[in-house]
Amino acid sequence: MFLAKIYVTYKPSILDPKGETVKDALQRMDFNGVQDVVMGKYFEIKLAGTDLASVEQEVQAFSEKLLINVNMEVFRYEIEAITE
Amino acid sequence: MFLAKIYVTYKPSILDPKGETVKDALQRMDFNGVQDVVMGKYFEIKLAGTDLASVEQEVQAFSEKLLINVNMEVFRYEIEAITE
Repeated sequence: MFLAKIYVTYKPSILDPKGETVKDALQRMDFNGVQDVVMGKYFEIKLAGTDLASVEQEVQAFSEKLLINVNMEVFRYEIEAITE
Repeated sequence: MFLAKIYVTYKPSILDPKGETVKDALQRMDFNGVQDVVMGKYFEIKLAGTDLASVEQEVQAFSEKLLINVNMEVFRYEIEAITE
């Protein structure tokens, strides 16, 4: 069994309205250290499988097909073997 | 300067409708290895600051006050020093 952690954020060229909104709110709450905020999606996906390479291929495929908007978003992932 | 990465997910006791929806969609797309999906929010926040301890306190405080719904969500974070 494997656990894939997938992080989806906007491409740098794309405006991130939610991130801007959070940044403004934090600064209004006097968290003045805050310089920049990026907000995205986070997935933890448990996958049955015996070898890392095939699980990695599956994560790559379904991330591009379903989890992200390929025109606006990018993703990165980490995969770890788990016992459960 | 520091970069905080914050991961927000539902408490285990809380139903995760979005996660269930993604799981069903992946299985219908024949990604049969998929066993379970948790979907949450992901933040990358740049913070000015000189020492890790005070930045950590700030992250803890604004996560609880703004980034999560304390009744339904939990968060974890990682903080790293960055040069930019």
